[in-house]
Amino acid sequence: MSHHISGLEAQRLQYKPKLPPVLASGKIKIEAGKVVPSQDKEHWQEIEKEFSTTSKLPVVKLVEGEGNLSNDALKVGVVLSGGPAAGGHNAIAGLFDALKAANRASQLFGFLGGPKGIFTNKWVELTAEAIAPYRNTGGFDMIGSGRDKIEKPEQLEGCEKTAKALGLNALVIIGGDDSNTNAAILAEYCAAKQIPLQVIGLPKTIDGDMRNEFIDMSFGFDTAVKTYAYLVGNICRDARSGGKYWHFIKLMGRSASHVTLEVALQTQPNLAIISEEVKARGLTLNDVVEQICDTIAKRAEGGKNYGVVLIPEGLLEFLADFNDFLRDIGHLLGQHGNELAALPPRERIDFVSSKLPDESAKLYRNLPASFQETILQRDAHGNLLVSQLETEKFLADLVEARLADWKEQGRYSGKFSAITHFFGYEGRCGFPTNFDADYTYCLGYAAAQLIRGGLTGYTVSAKNLAHPVEKWEFGGVPVASMVVMEHRKGALKPVIKKALVELDSPAFKYFAKHRDMWSVEDAYKSPGPIQYFGPPEICDSRNITMLLEAGIAV
Amino acid sequence: MSHHISGLEAQRLQYKPKLPPVLASGKIKIEAGKVVPSQDKEHWQEIEKEFSTTSKLPVVKLVEGEGNLSNDALKVGVVLSGGPAAGGHNAIAGLFDALKAANRASQLFGFLGGPKGIFTNKWVELTAEAIAPYRNTGGFDMIGSGRDKIEKPEQLEGCEKTAKALGLNALVIIGGDDSNTNAAILAEYCAAKQIPLQVIGLPKTIDGDMRNEFIDMSFGFDTAVKTYAYLVGNICRDARSGGKYWHFIKLMGRSASHVTLEVALQTQPNLAIISEEVKARGLTLNDVVEQICDTIAKRAEGGKNYGVVLIPEGLLEFLADFNDFLRDIGHLLGQHGNELAALPPRERIDFVSSKLPDESAKLYRNLPASFQETILQRDAHGNLLVSQLETEKFLADLVEARLADWKEQGRYSGKFSAITHFFGYEGRCGFPTNFDADYTYCLGYAAAQLIRGGLTGYTVSAKNLAHPVEKWEFGGVPVASMVVMEHRKGALKPVIKKALVELDSPAFKYFAKHRDMWSVEDAYKSPGPIQYFGPPEICDSRNITMLLEAGIAV
Repeated sequence: MSHHISGLEAQRLQYKPKLPPVLASGKIKIEAGKVVPSQDKEHWQEIEKEFSTTSKLPVVKLVEGEGNLSNDALKVGVVLSGGPAAGGHNAIAGLFDALKAANRASQLFGFLGGPKGIFTNKWVELTAEAIAPYRNTGGFDMIGSGRDKIEKPEQLEGCEKTAKALGLNALVIIGGDDSNTNAAILAEYCAAKQIPLQVIGLPKTIDGDMRNEFIDMSFGFDTAVKTYAYLVGNICRDARSGGKYWHFIKLMGRSASHVTLEVALQTQPNLAIISEEVKARGLTLNDVVEQICDTIAKRAEGGKNYGVVLIPEGLLEFLADFNDFLRDIGHLLGQHGNELAALPPRERIDFVSSKLPDESAKLYRNLPASFQETILQRDAHGNLLVSQLETEKFLADLVEARLADWKEQGRYSGKFSAITHFFGYEGRCGFPTNFDADYTYCLGYAAAQLIRGGLTGYTVSAKNLAHPVEKWEFGGVPVASMVVMEHRKGALKPVIKKALVELDSPAFKYFAKHRDMWSVEDAYKSPGPIQYFGPPEICDSRNITMLLEAGIAV
Repeated sequence: MSHHISGLEAQRLQYKPKLPPVLASGKIKIEAGKVVPSQDKEHWQEIEKEFSTTSKLPVVKLVEGEGNLSNDALKVGVVLSGGPAAGGHNAIAGLFDALKAANRASQLFGFLGGPKGIFTNKWVELTAEAIAPYRNTGGFDMIGSGRDKIEKPEQLEGCEKTAKALGLNALVIIGGDDSNTNAAILAEYCAAKQIPLQVIGLPKTIDGDMRNEFIDMSFGFDTAVKTYAYLVGNICRDARSGGKYWHFIKLMGRSASHVTLEVALQTQPNLAIISEEVKARGLTLNDVVEQICDTIAKRAEGGKNYGVVLIPEGLLEFLADFNDFLRDIGHLLGQHGNELAALPPRERIDFVSSKLPDESAKLYRNLPASFQETILQRDAHGNLLVSQLETEKFLADLVEARLADWKEQGRYSGKFSAITHFFGYEGRCGFPTNFDADYTYCLGYAAAQLIRGGLTGYTVSAKNLAHPVEKWEFGGVPVASMVVMEHRKGALKPVIKKALVELDSPAFKYFAKHRDMWSVEDAYKSPGPIQYFGPPEICDSRNITMLLEAGIAV
């Protein structure tokens, strides 16, 4: 056995991803559907102007048939963009296999280190030999990734130049909402300048927030949530075994709380905070702290001084008062920084309280003493140290201080000891689940068909993913039909709207229905580690969010 | 499917742990071996005095045969002690099944919440129905655990009282080195007072440091290291995919670095610090920081501004200078605390430097500014805040500061951005690997035989574990023969010596031979998640430490 390849990796290299009958048949045609109007009722004119060529394209579907796909030898480039998500390598493998199935002379080029590899013309040819050691593996390390955008004139020109130099027919951009928007911008740029480069995007993000009526789920989400749920399930069991710790677990997901929601559905912890609900209900930091303390106090009454709380990474930004508070603190330091620096520690707190607006002063006074000082510090670059605050520790400390108050007031008589965790990086680069391995292979395979069909400015669409692979449907959705215009850094920019957790969605409603029971009882569930060889109901399982949203009972 | 049981859990409940032929046959006899003299050449007399009845017992082995095991109906108690380790439930299941196989009328009682459950007479009867939902699951939640010891007179008397009330013939203590020492103390107490309670210990600890010539490995280590190695493997792949982060990963293990060493063997990271080597070489904090910076600088020269460093939890205590430094700081605060409190921040550093002994002053001046202040703080209980220091963050910050110096000096021109992790609780309560599931079931099964043989004061021994189950050998080793006398809180106390990483062990030597290559190249290996259904070479694999120590090539 190679010293760089584990036993499981050797096995996974042999896995054959499943394709639905349409893709497997090799007899594929593109069927055009309707033109979908922009969702952005306010800015549809700006969008039509920005994407004059690509905004009125029809949705398309890959169906069984023959006739309208090219069998010419094609030169195709592929790039991985942004944070890694399990399955990126399989998307490339699927793209490669489909191109070669249509014409052995087609070539695939991988741009190195993300979009920058395109501008700077850094690539490797992805041959069968180059791809083989990466099939069904996690990570983006086959060609690396990067966070550069493709939107500025010099970036677009860089792409143009490289495409010409290589003689590229098409470019596949594997990335999230921003990268797919960039795919649309580049497609439009090429179409307008009559550069013969087709651009196709694939929906990637572990956050699960690149989703809509055309795309059931972004890839990487399934592997990430199953990895985190494994760890959270273990920790729930640990909490109950020892009976003495409260675990505060932060989970990746800055904008949407899909990851936290799904992990809660899989593990049934005592509390899971969903940012979108916090925002919808206008909750303040104090409200959230009280909610956590309520659960802890209720469990303590039943003799349970342990538990698990899940916290979405982006929570603080969704609180009704915290953004204003940070702005007020920044403002205060700007105006009174020198006065403050001259004050002895014990006078600083009152000084700050007196200078802040009422709401922020209240929040400040409610903070534990250690944070009242930390929050006034800046780092070497002049940024507030609090912006580097670890949300899970911050909350645990606030809760500890509040419970101490409650104890004095006789409202609480338990013991509280917190342990904090953050799970994020652990879940982005594991071997993809069978679902993600199959799904991404299909995405790459479908991208090749859109290219063969001469399309540009599309993201590969995917439907029926909650069902067996045989029922999966692929096609393309014009990126321009998914974008809305948003103010970013003062300018109106096209962006694909992130799909946040909807409070009337089946997944959230299921959670809301069960959470009271989970908070008091120990209803912990252990999903265990991701399995690859066992019964299909385990190895090929769908995540719960996806099942519920498809109306499938769990 | 039950809403509290995952698909994998339902499958695992059906798993049948493997037994070696001797145990499976049901025809078992106990063969006495030689009496092993105490390892403690200095204090053997104290040990013989402390364990006058149980220190001269022979090592015993379970072999095929008949004749000397009782088939009487027995009443046996079992308790889980200390931090959870995967397989505790199976140890209980194996004990139960073996007792019932010998006599259906035997009964098993589980003491609740650890040893305290014995003193306070809190137990449940463990029937087949009570045990069924816990077979092959992780955690200690079947009966809970606790950290109370069994050594004080009132604790020993509590045990005696409960044993009499229940009519117990034997007690099985599942725990680590301290708990097994307690088993010996209780056995001796009972033997001396002619209380008919036999006491047997089982070797548990994820740290892998309860090991000797009689016990190949403590249980729970295999599951823990495979869980951490999965996560570390994912992070190595993430580091390489993005190419921009150094991950500092702390792994559980306060005394021994077996966990860190094994995870390094499985994942081949750029650097793994082994506390025992640090101590043997007399390295200071500065030495370790320089070692990490050297690796980072070397990789940066090759254009690699990313990597992974593993850090054992207990590292700081093994440094040549850090313990003295903390003592000196504590001393200084005691003597000059008031003077210091009156000084403005910028004068404090010089004041402290001037008051510390040379070595500690040097260490102090080398600390980044933020730590120079932190290190002078005390918490609400008067303890130094630095004792709560997160080693992985502390090192990452020291490294960042040092690299900034090196950059100014032209010794380093890379980019450094660190992300820190701590993996511990995640690995204690997962479903046991097949190895741990089988091993713990056998341990419990063997414990029942020692009880049937009338023995007391023994820990179950286990040999040949690196080989297939068919070759496993079980028996008993008198706990007293494993203990040494050590000074703890001023008094000489019997303890089972923790097995630390030996620098001339096969595992360490393998690591030392390959680490230079791993530090520069990306030799990362992805073990992937623990598998239960696949090829035996994956599902029943042994950890690398165990293979190497058995002389099996990897």
